Amino acid sequence: MLELSSGQYFTVYNVLSFTIASMFGAFIFFLGARSQVGEKYRPALLISAVVVAIAGYHYFRIFDSWTHAYALADGGIYKATGAVFNDAYRYVDWLLTVPLLLIELVAVLALAKSDREGLFGKLAIAAFLMIALGYPGEIASDMTTRAIWGALSTVPFVYILYILWGKLGKAMDAQTPQVRVLLRNIRLLLIATWGFYPITYMLPMFGIPPQSSVVGIQVGYAISDVLAKAFYGVMIYWIARAKSEADGSLPAGSAH
Amino acid sequence: MLELSSGQYFTVYNVLSFTIASMFGAFIFFLGARSQVGEKYRPALLISAVVVAIAGYHYFRIFDSWTHAYALADGGIYKATGAVFNDAYRYVDWLLTVPLLLIELVAVLALAKSDREGLFGKLAIAAFLMIALGYPGEIASDMTTRAIWGALSTVPFVYILYILWGKLGKAMDAQTPQVRVLLRNIRLLLIATWGFYPITYMLPMFGIPPQSSVVGIQVGYAISDVLAKAFYGVMIYWIARAKSEADGSLPAGSAH
Repeated sequence: MLELSSGQYFTVYNVLSFTIASMFGAFIFFLGARSQVGEKYRPALLISAVVVAIAGYHYFRIFDSWTHAYALADGGIYKATGAVFNDAYRYVDWLLTVPLLLIELVAVLALAKSDREGLFGKLAIAAFLMIALGYPGEIASDMTTRAIWGALSTVPFVYILYILWGKLGKAMDAQTPQVRVLLRNIRLLLIATWGFYPITYMLPMFGIPPQSSVVGIQVGYAISDVLAKAFYGVMIYWIARAKSEADGSLPAGSAH
Repeated sequence: MLELSSGQYFTVYNVLSFTIASMFGAFIFFLGARSQVGEKYRPALLISAVVVAIAGYHYFRIFDSWTHAYALADGGIYKATGAVFNDAYRYVDWLLTVPLLLIELVAVLALAKSDREGLFGKLAIAAFLMIALGYPGEIASDMTTRAIWGALSTVPFVYILYILWGKLGKAMDAQTPQVRVLLRNIRLLLIATWGFYPITYMLPMFGIPPQSSVVGIQVGYAISDVLAKAFYGVMIYWIARAKSEADGSLPAGSAH
């Protein structure tokens, strides 16, 4: 049975709580901020709100699962209780939120109908495959199985990045300089945070102690989720705001 | 193991509950009050709502942690149970809310873009450093460590006050007399409440009994949080209201 030091146990505990707070704070912000952007961009913010609400719910569950999986034992260490720490919450969360994150981005671009054709469907299917293929590896105990499913999951991941790169690049040409900078930044954030997930996934393969790998996985996924959902949503808001300003659709009297 | 009298235990217990009630009351007010100010000032009120919601969540957790850390024993006293009272909630809370409190203030000033340039970033980084540097001292058991980290944390704290002082002073010149008085008051509130945190932090160094120091820290931080988040948000609302009146952006029919 795995034993964690008090510091290791509480690092995960506090990072999970931080994530819950971030998601619910972001939820309130996205919901309220809809009235601060033009009508055309409000669906993107609404989807941002849905994403962080779903993630906040799952982090409540993950937090609970964590506190039941370990218990304080003699000497101030935390011992595995035998109750399973449920990794599936993350995958269920991603199954719902990752397609929505992609739709959020496409929505804020407010592409013409002809450019959007089939885009949602292609991205949603690829996102689904990416997550579904990762899961068998996540719960596998041997590293070869983990590596094989991880590699399979990378195929749709690369496909998504390829499609988005092209679409974002194309969309960027038509924007004001301010919006272009924001789109460039969100593209970087997307690459950086989405690229962080596979690194976290691979942690157990690096031959580090199992304790460090348990803690590292939880902290890595949580920080990635905060950046890829809450902070990403804030960037979507900035883009929506800048585009509203550019096309004159800001609510009357709200420009500075 | 620490023992608290029933009076000491319930002082903290009731102050924590008072804080939860204040934060959620403030949350409802800020969310609803957005429609009572001009469009330009609504983002500031939305951020006020996010701040007190995040704080309310953390006070729920702190309250829970408190009730698990002590249990009623013979003779009506409260004994430490061995379950850790989690100080990290406060720091996680501050990590999220302090940058937002600063953004709130900058947002209500509705500065011109050129005056705002880089301001958010500078303030957010300084706020992050201030809190991150305080934490190792807070959980340290020896007073020298506490003092060193506390001193380090004071550097970004002074920097924030310096920047804000300048910006607020500059913004004050352009305002109506009523708004100027409000800005002067919020500046005083900021100094008074933010200055109260380091005093609370230093409590264990004053050679007082550990019980008094435990109770004093909880009460001190809680009162500071109510003033620096909920009451501060109310002052932001007054400023938004006065500025809306001054620039004629009050919702039609809402002037008295």
